[in-house]
Amino acid sequence: MPTDIEIARQATLIPITDVAKNAGVPDEALIPYGKYKAKVDTSHLPDRPAGKLILVTAINPTPAGEGKTTTSVGLSDALHRIGKKTMLCLREPSLGPCFGMKGGGAGGGKSQVMPMDEINLHFTGDFHAITSAHNLLAAMIDNQIYWGNPNDIDIRRVVWKRVLDMNDRALRQIVGPLGGVANGFPRESGFDITVASEIMAILCLASDLADLQKRLGDIIIGYNRKREPVYCRDIKADSAMTVLLKDAILPNLVQTLENNPAFLHGGPFANIAHGCNSVIATNTAMKMADYTVTEAGFGADLGAEKFMDIKCRLAGLKPDAIVIVATVRALKMNGGVAKNDLGTPNADAVRAGAVNLKRHIENLKKFGVTPTVAINHFHLDTDEEIAVIQEMAAEFGTDAVICKHWADGSAGAEELARIVAAKADAGAPEFNQLYPDDMSLADKIRTVGREIYRADEVHIAAPLVKQLEQWEQMGYGKFPVCMAKTQYSFTTDPGRLGAPTGHEVEVNEVRLSAGAGFVVAVCGGIMTMPGLPKVPSAENIYLDENGQIEGLF
Amino acid sequence: MPTDIEIARQATLIPITDVAKNAGVPDEALIPYGKYKAKVDTSHLPDRPAGKLILVTAINPTPAGEGKTTTSVGLSDALHRIGKKTMLCLREPSLGPCFGMKGGGAGGGKSQVMPMDEINLHFTGDFHAITSAHNLLAAMIDNQIYWGNPNDIDIRRVVWKRVLDMNDRALRQIVGPLGGVANGFPRESGFDITVASEIMAILCLASDLADLQKRLGDIIIGYNRKREPVYCRDIKADSAMTVLLKDAILPNLVQTLENNPAFLHGGPFANIAHGCNSVIATNTAMKMADYTVTEAGFGADLGAEKFMDIKCRLAGLKPDAIVIVATVRALKMNGGVAKNDLGTPNADAVRAGAVNLKRHIENLKKFGVTPTVAINHFHLDTDEEIAVIQEMAAEFGTDAVICKHWADGSAGAEELARIVAAKADAGAPEFNQLYPDDMSLADKIRTVGREIYRADEVHIAAPLVKQLEQWEQMGYGKFPVCMAKTQYSFTTDPGRLGAPTGHEVEVNEVRLSAGAGFVVAVCGGIMTMPGLPKVPSAENIYLDENGQIEGLF
Repeated sequence: MPTDIEIARQATLIPITDVAKNAGVPDEALIPYGKYKAKVDTSHLPDRPAGKLILVTAINPTPAGEGKTTTSVGLSDALHRIGKKTMLCLREPSLGPCFGMKGGGAGGGKSQVMPMDEINLHFTGDFHAITSAHNLLAAMIDNQIYWGNPNDIDIRRVVWKRVLDMNDRALRQIVGPLGGVANGFPRESGFDITVASEIMAILCLASDLADLQKRLGDIIIGYNRKREPVYCRDIKADSAMTVLLKDAILPNLVQTLENNPAFLHGGPFANIAHGCNSVIATNTAMKMADYTVTEAGFGADLGAEKFMDIKCRLAGLKPDAIVIVATVRALKMNGGVAKNDLGTPNADAVRAGAVNLKRHIENLKKFGVTPTVAINHFHLDTDEEIAVIQEMAAEFGTDAVICKHWADGSAGAEELARIVAAKADAGAPEFNQLYPDDMSLADKIRTVGREIYRADEVHIAAPLVKQLEQWEQMGYGKFPVCMAKTQYSFTTDPGRLGAPTGHEVEVNEVRLSAGAGFVVAVCGGIMTMPGLPKVPSAENIYLDENGQIEGLF
Repeated sequence: MPTDIEIARQATLIPITDVAKNAGVPDEALIPYGKYKAKVDTSHLPDRPAGKLILVTAINPTPAGEGKTTTSVGLSDALHRIGKKTMLCLREPSLGPCFGMKGGGAGGGKSQVMPMDEINLHFTGDFHAITSAHNLLAAMIDNQIYWGNPNDIDIRRVVWKRVLDMNDRALRQIVGPLGGVANGFPRESGFDITVASEIMAILCLASDLADLQKRLGDIIIGYNRKREPVYCRDIKADSAMTVLLKDAILPNLVQTLENNPAFLHGGPFANIAHGCNSVIATNTAMKMADYTVTEAGFGADLGAEKFMDIKCRLAGLKPDAIVIVATVRALKMNGGVAKNDLGTPNADAVRAGAVNLKRHIENLKKFGVTPTVAINHFHLDTDEEIAVIQEMAAEFGTDAVICKHWADGSAGAEELARIVAAKADAGAPEFNQLYPDDMSLADKIRTVGREIYRADEVHIAAPLVKQLEQWEQMGYGKFPVCMAKTQYSFTTDPGRLGAPTGHEVEVNEVRLSAGAGFVVAVCGGIMTMPGLPKVPSAENIYLDENGQIEGLF
């Protein structure tokens, strides 16, 4: 079987100018970055009623893989195949992790977005721009402290760290500036990876440049000696940061292996942020196409919940249809089968593991949308195993469709496309968020914990409750909550697969993202600066004699 | 009088595809970045005999300004005007300093390269790529120490720091990683600004990707417990770093206000590095055009000396003609006039200050090239003042040409263009470097100090001499030396203008740039991470209601 990279190299890309033309992007709106990437200047797009929005989510991820991005690409290509004007919207990948574990890429098999190598390296520079804007604010904070500290910033309470798009554990916790008077006042600080920057979340939630600048200004960089918040706009950094981000805010156009258009734009962490591509890309896509296929990070308990409670709430969107991706192999793992035994047919294990899928479907129905199940097919799947999933979907009055886009491209996802298009056309009139804006922040956290994670209890220690109440008094009470929890389980224990019950959720920490517009509830250890493994994949990444990149995928 | 930015905004740019066509760049070699910037894939250029190389240098800079870049642009436009096929090669500016002092831009008046704002912001991402490659190596060093330290790196002797393209004094000296076992082994470290990275110097001296990777591998990242060097290739980072730099190595094409082509590529510090645009850009330009106009950083004592002793030596180049830029105002300052009195006619002060210009001319003749003086005209200059300069030039058998390109564009530099083209055609057959490869490193430093700075004595303390000898034993003896000294004076004291005598040069430190291929001799305090001023220009940089950037220039 050919590898993803072999398939990608056999692909014939068309010039991005042709991709744009096919997608209805006028010439004057296209800003090319090389021959196969472009930014789209959204101010030059014709006004058009918004099309339908289709969310692709998944069961809890396992090492067996569920193929959420692959299915998003396959579904989008299949919608094109059946004659539907469609746009695909995905997140752009982060550079740093490419040098850690072998990885990167967007999609797989015959359902990929191209050009893989450029997308995984510097792409159009969006993440570099975010890194610059983030670190400009950091430099201006220390500079203000250095030059007399007019905002009386408490150097023990600066919460704005620095960022790099690199897996570099040595930067997690540092002390500086050292070296005496000329360098400034020593304090504890550290670096996060760029995707964890609040600016990434802001860029992905901003409706336009003016909104971007307002949100940047709203960032709380720390507290003064009276414990009052100090904002980015007090540092006077928000306008220069906006200048640094003026191109990064424009969506990036690329193509699938079948030469259909795709926006890849923004990539916020799916734990301490909301894990969806930018609102601007989604809105632009919906104006350009009748169907927009988009994806949310992690499993439906995190990604889909945040998509609806954060992104849709803040941007006034709603999904017209939802696809939940599952694989026979991943359900078997949820049913207790070890990774090495996944090749053995085992319908009972699929049935046992399908409780995970079942609970996600129940959860999604709480938002008023019954999802369609996409069974991302693997060649060892048996009819009996697939029948188990289809039986279960029927219980919910929905479909579980076998999809072979990995092997066959759009032809393999035609049935899914027809069913989903029909459902999207019918719409999801009952759509509602899980909690209202005016519920207390603590109760919002408890609601997600009980309704989605099915915890018996959600513990929020008294000091954290007090902190949440203080933020409510400061005017942040209407914010949605952003849960930071392991992606591997409904619980906070990554080892508990399936549909666990009898568990409790402990909130360890709460953080205010005042610019992005949400409150983060951290449940369990969340790493915002990854490290490199013992043998980083960087050691095996190189240019071959033809100038092609090897080892990146 | 209109400001630079007003003139720039009135300019009519032509599409970069047209600029490329006019310059003879075939379609398949052009990689557009937006509508007005592109990279040129040098492998797709037709082979053609190399044209003539014209170096633009200057007297020692003063706050009055000498206009070296402006003159480079004006001369290139004027060569086009008189029908000469010409390419302009300049350095690309650094992002960080734009947020400190009001500044940025490339050229001025009617002699500018465009688009100013994009060039000064992220441009085509070259500096971001260098930042990524530099910090990948840093992360891999700490990662190797973390995972058992197979190269036995002495954590007290890691010389590879991290970089950001930001003026951030708080990062100059830090201690980390802190936080215990999971984060690594604490050590002292710090950040430089990206232009000070050895990778910047390497990118600008590499002949191609293979040479780039070899030089990256040659970088010394520190020393082991036996005090032996540990190389980048021991960390196995060189190939992944090359992948990160594969686009950054390609020259960037932009245009002047008169729509003539210009390469802006690379921007190494002119103190701890050699301060010239990339060898690849220069070589490519010389293959494309009959005349290539390029520039060296700082005054001729630093920039031109390094251009010839480092860049030309390592790349096998030689200048066919040299232009030295001077202004009446700057010579007056060299003659002792205060900045506020520069508007008063004072031919005697010009004569007194012209000793600075005279010494630079004498120095350049030591390389076998008699420079042409370009008098960058200011509207308050008097005929008498100008006559002083012309008289002095005549002493050396050369011309001092009045140039009004700032006010009039190419029309104002036609005479300069005719004279310089004729000199370049005649060539500089006597060209030679200041010292041979096989002179000892200490003697190379002494030679530059005596011959160029005219110091009576060059002090190199015994431990530094020993260090230089050790490097010679390690095989680095044939390297040229790169002097890091104030740009404002021939001496190491920035306050001593004119042509000082009776001074001594003290070498404070020597550094080995084993990948770039030179030894740095630091004379005086050299800052490799600038700070921001009390009121950073970032506070006044913003997007206006038309989306235009204000405050950047």
